[in-house]
Amino acid sequence: MPIRTADEYIASLRNRRLCVYLGGERVEEPVDHPVIRPSVNAVAETYRLAEERPDLATALSPITGERVNRFLHVAGSVEDVVMQNRMQRVLGQRTGTCFQRCVGMDATNALYSVTWDVDQARGTRYHSRLLSFLAHVQRENLVLGGAMTDPKGDRGRGPSEQADPDLFVRVVERRPDGVVLRGAKMHQTGCINSHWLLIMPTMRLTERDRDYAIVAAVPVDAPGIRYVYGRQSCDTRALEPGDIDQGNARFGGQEAIVILEDVFVPTSHVLLDGEYEYAASLVERFTGFHRRSYVCKTGVGDVLIGAAATLADYHGVPGASHVRDKLVEMVHLNETIYGAGIAASHESRQLPSGNYQCDDMLANVCKHNVTRNPYEIARLAQDLAGGVMVTLPSDADFKNPETGPLLDKYLQARAGVPVESRRRVLRLVENMTLGRNAVGYLTESLHGAGSPQAQRVQIQRLAGLGEKMALAKRLAGVDEGTNKPTGD
Amino acid sequence: MPIRTADEYIASLRNRRLCVYLGGERVEEPVDHPVIRPSVNAVAETYRLAEERPDLATALSPITGERVNRFLHVAGSVEDVVMQNRMQRVLGQRTGTCFQRCVGMDATNALYSVTWDVDQARGTRYHSRLLSFLAHVQRENLVLGGAMTDPKGDRGRGPSEQADPDLFVRVVERRPDGVVLRGAKMHQTGCINSHWLLIMPTMRLTERDRDYAIVAAVPVDAPGIRYVYGRQSCDTRALEPGDIDQGNARFGGQEAIVILEDVFVPTSHVLLDGEYEYAASLVERFTGFHRRSYVCKTGVGDVLIGAAATLADYHGVPGASHVRDKLVEMVHLNETIYGAGIAASHESRQLPSGNYQCDDMLANVCKHNVTRNPYEIARLAQDLAGGVMVTLPSDADFKNPETGPLLDKYLQARAGVPVESRRRVLRLVENMTLGRNAVGYLTESLHGAGSPQAQRVQIQRLAGLGEKMALAKRLAGVDEGTNKPTGD
Amino acid sequence: MPIRTADEYIASLRNRRLCVYLGGERVEEPVDHPVIRPSVNAVAETYRLAEERPDLATALSPITGERVNRFLHVAGSVEDVVMQNRMQRVLGQRTGTCFQRCVGMDATNALYSVTWDVDQARGTRYHSRLLSFLAHVQRENLVLGGAMTDPKGDRGRGPSEQADPDLFVRVVERRPDGVVLRGAKMHQTGCINSHWLLIMPTMRLTERDRDYAIVAAVPVDAPGIRYVYGRQSCDTRALEPGDIDQGNARFGGQEAIVILEDVFVPTSHVLLDGEYEYAASLVERFTGFHRRSYVCKTGVGDVLIGAAATLADYHGVPGASHVRDKLVEMVHLNETIYGAGIAASHESRQLPSGNYQCDDMLANVCKHNVTRNPYEIARLAQDLAGGVMVTLPSDADFKNPETGPLLDKYLQARAGVPVESRRRVLRLVENMTLGRNAVGYLTESLHGAGSPQAQRVQIQRLAGLGEKMALAKRLAGVDEGTNKPTGD
Amino acid sequence: MPIRTADEYIASLRNRRLCVYLGGERVEEPVDHPVIRPSVNAVAETYRLAEERPDLATALSPITGERVNRFLHVAGSVEDVVMQNRMQRVLGQRTGTCFQRCVGMDATNALYSVTWDVDQARGTRYHSRLLSFLAHVQRENLVLGGAMTDPKGDRGRGPSEQADPDLFVRVVERRPDGVVLRGAKMHQTGCINSHWLLIMPTMRLTERDRDYAIVAAVPVDAPGIRYVYGRQSCDTRALEPGDIDQGNARFGGQEAIVILEDVFVPTSHVLLDGEYEYAASLVERFTGFHRRSYVCKTGVGDVLIGAAATLADYHGVPGASHVRDKLVEMVHLNETIYGAGIAASHESRQLPSGNYQCDDMLANVCKHNVTRNPYEIARLAQDLAGGVMVTLPSDADFKNPETGPLLDKYLQARAGVPVESRRRVLRLVENMTLGRNAVGYLTESLHGAGSPQAQRVQIQRLAGLGEKMALAKRLAGVDEGTNKPTGD
Repeated sequence: MPIRTADEYIASLRNRRLCVYLGGERVEEPVDHPVIRPSVNAVAETYRLAEERPDLATALSPITGERVNRFLHVAGSVEDVVMQNRMQRVLGQRTGTCFQRCVGMDATNALYSVTWDVDQARGTRYHSRLLSFLAHVQRENLVLGGAMTDPKGDRGRGPSEQADPDLFVRVVERRPDGVVLRGAKMHQTGCINSHWLLIMPTMRLTERDRDYAIVAAVPVDAPGIRYVYGRQSCDTRALEPGDIDQGNARFGGQEAIVILEDVFVPTSHVLLDGEYEYAASLVERFTGFHRRSYVCKTGVGDVLIGAAATLADYHGVPGASHVRDKLVEMVHLNETIYGAGIAASHESRQLPSGNYQCDDMLANVCKHNVTRNPYEIARLAQDLAGGVMVTLPSDADFKNPETGPLLDKYLQARAGVPVESRRRVLRLVENMTLGRNAVGYLTESLHGAGSPQAQRVQIQRLAGLGEKMALAKRLAGVDEGTNKPTGD
Repeated sequence: MPIRTADEYIASLRNRRLCVYLGGERVEEPVDHPVIRPSVNAVAETYRLAEERPDLATALSPITGERVNRFLHVAGSVEDVVMQNRMQRVLGQRTGTCFQRCVGMDATNALYSVTWDVDQARGTRYHSRLLSFLAHVQRENLVLGGAMTDPKGDRGRGPSEQADPDLFVRVVERRPDGVVLRGAKMHQTGCINSHWLLIMPTMRLTERDRDYAIVAAVPVDAPGIRYVYGRQSCDTRALEPGDIDQGNARFGGQEAIVILEDVFVPTSHVLLDGEYEYAASLVERFTGFHRRSYVCKTGVGDVLIGAAATLADYHGVPGASHVRDKLVEMVHLNETIYGAGIAASHESRQLPSGNYQCDDMLANVCKHNVTRNPYEIARLAQDLAGGVMVTLPSDADFKNPETGPLLDKYLQARAGVPVESRRRVLRLVENMTLGRNAVGYLTESLHGAGSPQAQRVQIQRLAGLGEKMALAKRLAGVDEGTNKPTGD
Repeated sequence: MPIRTADEYIASLRNRRLCVYLGGERVEEPVDHPVIRPSVNAVAETYRLAEERPDLATALSPITGERVNRFLHVAGSVEDVVMQNRMQRVLGQRTGTCFQRCVGMDATNALYSVTWDVDQARGTRYHSRLLSFLAHVQRENLVLGGAMTDPKGDRGRGPSEQADPDLFVRVVERRPDGVVLRGAKMHQTGCINSHWLLIMPTMRLTERDRDYAIVAAVPVDAPGIRYVYGRQSCDTRALEPGDIDQGNARFGGQEAIVILEDVFVPTSHVLLDGEYEYAASLVERFTGFHRRSYVCKTGVGDVLIGAAATLADYHGVPGASHVRDKLVEMVHLNETIYGAGIAASHESRQLPSGNYQCDDMLANVCKHNVTRNPYEIARLAQDLAGGVMVTLPSDADFKNPETGPLLDKYLQARAGVPVESRRRVLRLVENMTLGRNAVGYLTESLHGAGSPQAQRVQIQRLAGLGEKMALAKRLAGVDEGTNKPTGD
Repeated sequence: MPIRTADEYIASLRNRRLCVYLGGERVEEPVDHPVIRPSVNAVAETYRLAEERPDLATALSPITGERVNRFLHVAGSVEDVVMQNRMQRVLGQRTGTCFQRCVGMDATNALYSVTWDVDQARGTRYHSRLLSFLAHVQRENLVLGGAMTDPKGDRGRGPSEQADPDLFVRVVERRPDGVVLRGAKMHQTGCINSHWLLIMPTMRLTERDRDYAIVAAVPVDAPGIRYVYGRQSCDTRALEPGDIDQGNARFGGQEAIVILEDVFVPTSHVLLDGEYEYAASLVERFTGFHRRSYVCKTGVGDVLIGAAATLADYHGVPGASHVRDKLVEMVHLNETIYGAGIAASHESRQLPSGNYQCDDMLANVCKHNVTRNPYEIARLAQDLAGGVMVTLPSDADFKNPETGPLLDKYLQARAGVPVESRRRVLRLVENMTLGRNAVGYLTESLHGAGSPQAQRVQIQRLAGLGEKMALAKRLAGVDEGTNKPTGD
C-alpha cells in the first residue's frame, strides 16, 4: 500500500526496528518522542503539500508513468528543476525550518546521470538498478535520505591515509550477493524519519581509495545501523509543558550520526562500487543541485521577516523609517539568495543521460550567499524584536498566579495586542536565531552542501579567468597572439 | 536603405543637423570628435554583434516578419527576455563600458504594454502608432534612445509645484497636428549616437501634472533640440596622442543634457498625452526591465576581473592565496548580480498586451546589488593592481628618450612581461575604477534606472509583508482570524 | 564587615529576603540554583580579579581615602576611565560572558556629575546624598546594579501617554520621609547577585513626566520587589548532569524583570525627584560611559577567536590559508571595537563636577560596531568550528556504554586530540553563538546600552554636519558669508 | 635663514636644480607648474597651520631647545604622538587631500629608535648622525620626505634574486667619504616639494641583501636624481581655465618616481649601511607610525561628508530619512577609522631610546579599516550627490552664451541655491571620488603604508592566538598542562 497522506506517512514510521539513541538512552518509538516529533512533522508537511497542491509538489514520472511526489522525481525538463525550487520555498514558509527531503532528491538526480555515465563507459548496470529502485520508492511513495558526509578525522589527510580506516565509509567485505559496509555518516539531515538512505562518498577519491568508492541504497532499519541523535540548541524545551517557549512547536529539523556496523547491502542496491574516478563527478553534480536547493532558506527567511514585521507592529512602530529600512534590507538579502538559486535552475541543461542539471556557477553563488545573508537577516530580526527576545521569563512564570498578572501588565506593548501573541512571536524569533531552528537557518546554511570554502574552490574552477584575462587584454590593446583587438 | 553593418551605422550618423556642445564649443561633426567617438564605437559594437552572432543579437519581429536587431524587438516570449540579458553581458565584455542601447529597448518594451492598456481603457490609438513607429525603426535598423530623467529642481516638490514649470518636460502648446514640448532630459545615455529619442515622464504624476504626462518619439535632430555633452572623469585624455593612457581607447559611454526648446511633435508620434494615471505604470514597467538590464555590468565586471587577474600574473603572484581569494570574491559578487538579473528575465510573465514583462522584485534586487557590488569589485581590482595604477607616469614620459629607458627599467615586473603590456592593463583598471568608464561602471550603476532608494521603495511595495506576517503567526501559533495553525 | 574575597561575596548573597521566580516557581536560595549560579560566579570573578590584580581592578577612592573595587570608583582622571576598559577586557576573557557590574559603575559615574549639576542649579542636595551612599558601598565593597530600562509599552508614546501609567517607573506617593515607587525595570543585567539597585529614568522626559523623573538607590531585597528570571537559550542545560554540554559551565549572564510594587525609598536615598530636565543629560552621560563599556565584548571575542583557532588546530588545518584569513578577520573586527572604545576613554574630559567623562562620539561608534562585529565574528567561528557544532550528540550519549565508544571512534579528529577536548570546545562555540552566552555576546551586544538606532540618533547629533559643510564649501570655493576660501 | 611662513616655504622651493619630468617634458620651475602647484599648496598648509595654531602644529624640540614644526619633531611623550593625529585630521579637513609630510615625520620617529638600537648593539654612530641632521632641518624648518617603496620587480623574489639588481635601491660603491646609491623609489608622496629625502629599505632583508640595507638622508636636488611625475586621474584639468571643474583647485597630492642614478651620500648622512637585521624592525616601526597616520583620511572624510550633506541640502531633501541615515553611516565609518588610530597613539609606549612608539595592533587595524571604509563613504557620497556628478557639462559650456543660460535654467535645484555653488560641490565630490584627490582618498588609502595583505600579516603576528586558545580551553574545561581552569 503506497503512502497517500501525511498521516499515513507518520503511521509508516511506527513500529520499525530502528536503533535510535537520544540523551543517553535508546528511544522506544522515535515518532512519539517529543524532541524528534517536530522533525517528523516537517517531513509530513511535504506529503501534505503534495495533497493540497499537487501541481507544486508532485510530477509525472516517466519511470512509473504516474504522478509521484516531486522529491522522488528525476528532473526531465528545465521546468522540473525550477519547480523544485518553488516547492522548496513554500515548504520553508510552511515549516520555518529544514524539511529534510532535499538531500534525497538531489542525490537521486545526481545519481541518475552518474550511473548512466559509468554504465556507458564501463558496461556496468548501475543505472538500471537505480531505475528499479526508484520505481519502487516512487510507487510506495517513500522518503529517501541522502547520506554523504563522512567523519573525515584529520582534515589534512584522505580516506586511505587516516589512522583509522573507518573514518570514511568503506566496503569491508565483498560477497557474491552483495557488499558489507562499515563507517559512519555525520550530521545526517533526516534519516530516522526516512525509509531509505542513499550512501555516497563525500569527496574526490584516488586510486588508493577504491574501497571508499561505494554508493548504495540501504533501508534505514537495516541490521547494523545505529543512530545517535544530535542535540540542538534548546532541544529540551520540547520536553517542557506548553508550546509557547518552543517558538515553533510543530516543526524542527533532525540531524543524527548514522553508524554502519558491517551493514550488508545486496548487489541489487549497489549503485557504484570501486569506480573511484566518478566520485568527483557525483559530488559535483550532487552539490550543484544541493547548493541551489538552499533556496528553501528564503522560505524560512520569509517567516523570519514576517515575525520581525509583526513585532514592529506590536511595538507600535511599524512605520518608523529605520524599521521599514531594515525590513527592506532583509527582503533584499533574502531575494538575492532566491535570484541566484532560481536562476541556477532556469539555466539547467540536459545531460547525455537525458535528465537536467542546474547551472553550477549560479548554484554555488546561491549557496555562498546562503552562508552570509541569513546571518545578517537574523541579526536584523533580533534588532527589530528588541532585547526582550532573550530576557522573556518562561511560560511557566506567566502561568504562575503570583507572577503571571504582573508579567502580563508589564509586557503589554501596543494597546490591544495580546501579550501571549507577542510572546509567541518573540519565541519564534528566538527559535530561528538562537534556538532549535537556528541550527537549520544559520549553521546548516553555513555548512550544509559544503562549507563556504568549498563553494569558493568551485567558483574559482568555474570562473573562466583565462577568458576574462583575454577580454581585458583585448580592450587594453595588449597583443598576445590571438588576443588582438579588432579594428574600428 | 536600412543600416546593415557597424560601418553603415557610423556613416548614418554623419552630416546630421545635430546641435551638440562640448567643452564650450559647438561640435562640427560629433562622429569624428575624439571625446565622442568611443561612445559611437560602443553602439557600433551592437551592430557588429548582430552581424557576427545573429542568434544572440537579432530576433524575428512579428511586426515586420523579419529578423531585426534585438534592441528593437518587443519580447514575445520568456526566452526573448532572457536573450536580452545574454546579449547585454556579451556586449559588456566586448566594450568594457555602457553601450547605451538598453534604455531604448526597455522603453519600447514598456510602452508596448502601457499604450495597449491605455487604448483598451480610453479608446485611444497610441498602441497602433507605436507599432507603426516600430515597424519603421526595425526596417531601417535605427538606434532608439529613451529619455526619461527630468532635471527635477527641488526634490521635495512635484512637476507642477516647481518655481520654474519647465523643470519637467511638458506640453506647452497643443496644435491640431501635434504638440510642442519644452524642458530638458538629464544625463541622457546615448543620444547623439541615436536616431530617435523616446521622451517619457520620469515619475508618478497627479491630476495637476496633466501636461507633463507626455510620451513622444522625436528624431534626435528635430529642430529645437540642443545637446550639451557631460564631461567625464579623464575625458580629455582622448585628446592626447597615443592610446595607452586612455585605458580603453576604443569604447566609452556618453551622457548629455538634452534641451527641448519648443520642439514640435506630430500627432503620429505622440504615444501618450495627458493620461497622467498611466505614468506610474510606465515608469514601473520601464524600470522593471531596465533594472534587470544592468546585467550588462557583469560583462564589464568580467573585463575588470580579467584585468586584475592579468596584473596579478604580471606581478608574479597569481597563485598567492589572498590574490586567489580576492578574485573569487570578485567573481562571486559579479555572478550574484547576474543571478538576480537573469532570474528576473526567466520569471517573466505575459501581459494582456501579449508581450512579456520580467519579474519586478528580482529586477529591483538585481539593480540594488548593482549599486553595491561593482564598488567592491573595483576596490578589489585596485587592491590587486597595486598603487602604481595611480602613480604611473604619462605615456609621453615613456616616449621621452631621457626618461623612457629608465622607466622601462624600473617598471619591469615579472621577467618577460613587456612593460607596455603592464601599463596598458594598469590604465584599463584606472579607466574602469577612476576614469572615463568608472562613470559607467560605478556611478551609473548607482543612479541609472533609479538611485538605490528607488529600488528600496519598490522592494518594500513588493515585499508582501502582510503574507509574511501571516506565515510567522501561523507557525508561532498566533490565532488572528484566518491565521490558525493547521493541526498535525 | 566588608567583603574581601570572591567567596565572601558569594556568602554575602545567601539568606536574603529576595523574592525570585524562575521557571514558574519561587527560588529558595538563588545562589545555589544551578541556572542562576553561573551568573553569581561571573560577578565573583570581579572580586577575584581585585584580589589577584589590584592594580587593574581597584582604585584609590578620594571619597573614603582607601582602595576600593574599581567598579565602585568614580573616575578622577583619564587614566581611571581607561583602566575601566582594560579591566573589562580581562574580565571578558576570564568569564566568556557578561560579568554584569558595568551598569552600576557607569550609572555611578554619570550620577556623580548630574547630581552635582542639579545641586548647583537648584540648590538641592542630591550630590552629597550620593557621596554618602558611595562611601557606604565602597567601604562594604558591595555590588551595585543600575536599573534603567522601562517596559515602554507602545513605543510610539511617552511615559505619561501610555494606557497604563505604570509602564515607566514612577513616584506614586510622596511622604515626608521618602517616596513610593511603582513600575518595572526590564531585562535587568545583574540584580539578584547585587546588593543595591540604582533606579534611573530611561529616556528624555517632558514636564508632563515629572513623576517619572526619579533616581533612587534601593536595596535589592527591599520590600515590594519581585524578580522574574529571564530565560536564556539552552538555560536548562545547567540542570543536566555533567558540565560538557553547557559549553561554559562556570560563567553566565543574568537578566531579570524587576517589579516594583510600591517600594518605599527614604529621602536619604533619593538622588533625583522631579527635575525632569536632567533626565536627558543623565541618559546621555550614562550611555556615553556604557556604550564604551562594551569593550568587554572584545574580551569575550578573544575567547571565541581562541576557540575557533583551537578547533582549526584539532581538525588538522591550522595553517590553511582560508582558516588563517578568517582568524585575522575576526581579530581585526574585534580590535576595531576595542580601538573606538579605548579611544573614547582616552579622550575623556573633566566635567565641572571634577570627574571625567568619556568622549561621546567615539563611545557611540564603539557600541555601534558592537551591534555588528560580534555577529560576523560568531559566523566565522561557526565556519571554523564545522557543522558538528550543532549535530554533536549529548554528553549522555558519550557516556552510554553502547554508543560512547562508537562516538569516540568516529569523532576522532587529528590524531592525539582527545575527543572530549574537541567536544568541550565545540560546546563552547555553541554556548557563545547559539546558547546561553550568545545572549550576552550577540543579542545584548545589539540592544544593551541602547539599540542600534539609538546610537545612530546620537551620532547624528554629534556629527557636526554644519562644520563639515563649511569645510566642503571652503574647498569647493563656495562663498557663503564667512566661508570664504583663504588665499594661497 | 629658517623658513617662517607658508610663503617663505614656497619661495624656498624655487630656483633649485631639480630634474623633474611631467607629460614627457622637463619642467622648468615645478612650483609654478599648474599640475604640481596644488601639491605645493598642500604642504604649504602645514606651515600655515603652524603659524595659526602653534599649539597644534609645533612642538618644543629637546634637540634644539626651540619650538619646531611638529612634522620634524620626535615624539617624547604619549601626548606628542596623539597630537600628530589631531594635527593630521585638521590638515585633512583644510586640504581635502594628502598633505604629504607624514612619511617624513614617521620615518624620523622610526629611525630615532632604530639607529639607537643599532648603535647600542654594534657601536656604530648612526644615532648621533641622525640627531645632527635633525638639528639642521628643525632649525631651518625644512620638509623631509621619506622614500621607502622600491619597484620590487617580480613580487615572488627578494632584492638579491631579481634579474636586475637595481630593482631595489642599493649601494653600488663604497668610498672613504661616503656611499653611492642606485635604484628607484616608486610613487613617492611629496618629494619635489620637499628639501630632503630619507631613503630606507622597503622590507625585511636577509644576509644576501646586505647592500640593500641602506638608510640615507639625501637633498632632493642631489646630483643624479631624476623625478618623473605620476599622472593622476583628471590631472590635466589643472591646465584648463577656471577653477570649478577641478573640484578642489587649490590642493592636491603628488606622487613621483624618484630615480637615483649613482647618487653620492657623504658618511655624515648615512644612517644605516649593511646592518640588514634591522631592516625588519625599521619597516615595522615606520609602518606602525604610518598606518596610524592614516587618521588624516578622517579629515578628508569630514570634507566629503560635508559635501554630500551640502548637496542633499541643495536638492531640497536634507531631512529625508534615507539621506540622514546615509550621512550617519558615513560618519560612523569615518569615526571608526579615527577611533583605532587615535587609540594607537594613546596607547604608545616608551622605547629604550626614550622616544614613544604607538601601539602596533591598533595602528594596523586603523589602516586596515582605511583600506575599506573610505570606499564605502565615497559610494555613499556619490549616492547623495546624484548622477549629475558625472554628467555635468564643462565649465566652458556654462560660460558659453548659447548654452550657459539654458544650463543655469535646468540645473537649478532648490530655489535660492546658486547653480554655480551646486556645480562647485558636485565637482568636489567628483574630485574626491573619481578625480585627482580620489587618488589620495581611495587608492592611496588602499596601498599607502602597505597594501591590505600587509596589515593582515601583521595582525596575524600580533594576534596572540596562543593566549586566546588558552583562554578558550580554560573556560571549556580543557586541561592541557598549565591551562587548568581555576575552581569556583
